[in-house]
Amino acid sequence: MIIDCHGHYTTEPKDLHRFRQEQTKAAKDKLQMPSKAALKMSDDEIRESLEGAQLKLQRERGTDLTIFSPRASGMGHHIGDERVSLEWSQICNDLIHRVVSLYPNNFAGVCQLPQSPGVAPKNSGAELERCVKELGFIGCNLNPDPSGGYFNAPPMTDKWWYPFYEKMIELDVPAMIHVSGCCNPAQHTTGSYYLNADTMVFMQLILSDLFKDFPTLKLIIPHGGGAVPFHWGRFRGIALNNNRPELDRIMSNNIFFDTCVYHQPGIDLLTKVVPIDNILFASEMVGAVKGLDPRTGQYFDDTKRYVDQAQGLTAADKQKIFEGNARKVFSRLKIKSPAR
Amino acid sequence: MIIDCHGHYTTEPKDLHRFRQEQTKAAKDKLQMPSKAALKMSDDEIRESLEGAQLKLQRERGTDLTIFSPRASGMGHHIGDERVSLEWSQICNDLIHRVVSLYPNNFAGVCQLPQSPGVAPKNSGAELERCVKELGFIGCNLNPDPSGGYFNAPPMTDKWWYPFYEKMIELDVPAMIHVSGCCNPAQHTTGSYYLNADTMVFMQLILSDLFKDFPTLKLIIPHGGGAVPFHWGRFRGIALNNNRPELDRIMSNNIFFDTCVYHQPGIDLLTKVVPIDNILFASEMVGAVKGLDPRTGQYFDDTKRYVDQAQGLTAADKQKIFEGNARKVFSRLKIKSPAR
Repeated sequence: MIIDCHGHYTTEPKDLHRFRQEQTKAAKDKLQMPSKAALKMSDDEIRESLEGAQLKLQRERGTDLTIFSPRASGMGHHIGDERVSLEWSQICNDLIHRVVSLYPNNFAGVCQLPQSPGVAPKNSGAELERCVKELGFIGCNLNPDPSGGYFNAPPMTDKWWYPFYEKMIELDVPAMIHVSGCCNPAQHTTGSYYLNADTMVFMQLILSDLFKDFPTLKLIIPHGGGAVPFHWGRFRGIALNNNRPELDRIMSNNIFFDTCVYHQPGIDLLTKVVPIDNILFASEMVGAVKGLDPRTGQYFDDTKRYVDQAQGLTAADKQKIFEGNARKVFSRLKIKSPAR
Repeated sequence: MIIDCHGHYTTEPKDLHRFRQEQTKAAKDKLQMPSKAALKMSDDEIRESLEGAQLKLQRERGTDLTIFSPRASGMGHHIGDERVSLEWSQICNDLIHRVVSLYPNNFAGVCQLPQSPGVAPKNSGAELERCVKELGFIGCNLNPDPSGGYFNAPPMTDKWWYPFYEKMIELDVPAMIHVSGCCNPAQHTTGSYYLNADTMVFMQLILSDLFKDFPTLKLIIPHGGGAVPFHWGRFRGIALNNNRPELDRIMSNNIFFDTCVYHQPGIDLLTKVVPIDNILFASEMVGAVKGLDPRTGQYFDDTKRYVDQAQGLTAADKQKIFEGNARKVFSRLKIKSPAR
């Protein structure tokens, strides 16, 4: 079975965008909020939005299940206040739940959280609990920078985040560390901002005692771990110079990278330096980089192809990357392997 | 000849640190500034600070010349105001000039600039001109984030920076894009902040028309280009999706990466995906990562070893990386190859 641990609903029904535009404007101009009840998204429209995109790509590429969450760049935690963020998160999470209900063999749900700049992460616990207990979700996307590009939240190793980690552990779900759309003109959302957040958080984690305090906390750093595998020697050296253990020991059962790296040499490097037990297959489709690579004639984000062809991986390694590690990290995932 | 294009004076005489501490405190508490004239740094002390460090490592590793600038993390553009930044820059640049005067065959000078948050980069032109014309410097370090960690300056493609680029071109010098010490607790100076700035700026450049406006502008992005080579497919895809050319065409005679990547697989990837003409040898020593890699028994930052052993490089490729490209980028560098 091939589990893609990182997919976003980026082909949402268009009325969702209408709602969000009105909500954003209302928050900015202090107008009346649009009505949630007036949102028009039929099951047929949801099916259509997926059949020609995520489901088609699953079939074409030979993947089985996508761990699916709302559009990351759309979370927009910096827009409006906590109340706006909560309503928007609930709408987006309910929509993911409808997707999963329509296609229970193709998708498993991961929620966005009602974070807001300066608001304690603890406040996101209730929505996480609702998504896990009522909607059957298996994880969440946790934003390390609700400001949308200025990196001014406390490090994720700060006690500020601890009550939320306690809730994650109580519910037995992992978090993917994922920022949202960037409102800082110096950073490009999918080009630099996502990667910079990944690199920033890894560096916070490796010099901290977070996993002494939370031995079962599981965090996925997406986009191949940002800059980390390319600079593996730099991070190893800094860790060792700070009397920390080797990175593989630090990552152990707590930190995982995905395979959203869109060329063969990148995946070769990732699978060479990062422990196989800490790599989860993912493509981020339909997402950051659409279209065909003119040099290979293949989709940039068809990461299964790169993993299939990665140098030096055994069949057992690939089984871990494609399925085994995801089942370990997303322990609430109960879907059985399909008869293929 | 082997030219290391990225070295910082990180073993400065201790009175420099005393001065800077007093200057920082005075700026913060609005006290009287310490006297520049009272700084005590003898030639012997400077010699001693280098003989056991940079010069020893040059000899041991078989490199010839280091393009040398003040400690990057020490620039501290966020400390005090423009006046403080100017005095500090002049002191640091004059010190580099003394190093180069003592060891003209081992070092060539690159200056720090008197940048300050919110102050137009144009104002750094006079110090650049002084360093080039009076001190014989061959380049500068240009900080894309004088705030020290919040990325709130305009993108480097903004017209805000243009008058400074005009001065660089008039003087025929390149800039290394290099942030300073991080005052944002979410980012680690050498672990994440440096790399994030590199990645951020590359992304700014590739979607811009900066090099149409400045066809001869030369920018070096250090630390192997941040996250870029690892995510080469992502950046290629984003560029192509934005109707930009291939990255190698964008980089061409304008964007260069150095080899400050501290493990063999990283250098293998760098030299495989990035055009050889755009890679400059560098080690950043004595710098970000000191000490021996316990797995190889070699220094993490002995990057010459990785380049020597990189897969698939011809002798001509290595000549470009070690010397030829640096002479092209630093066109004011006139030192001849030594008899070895």
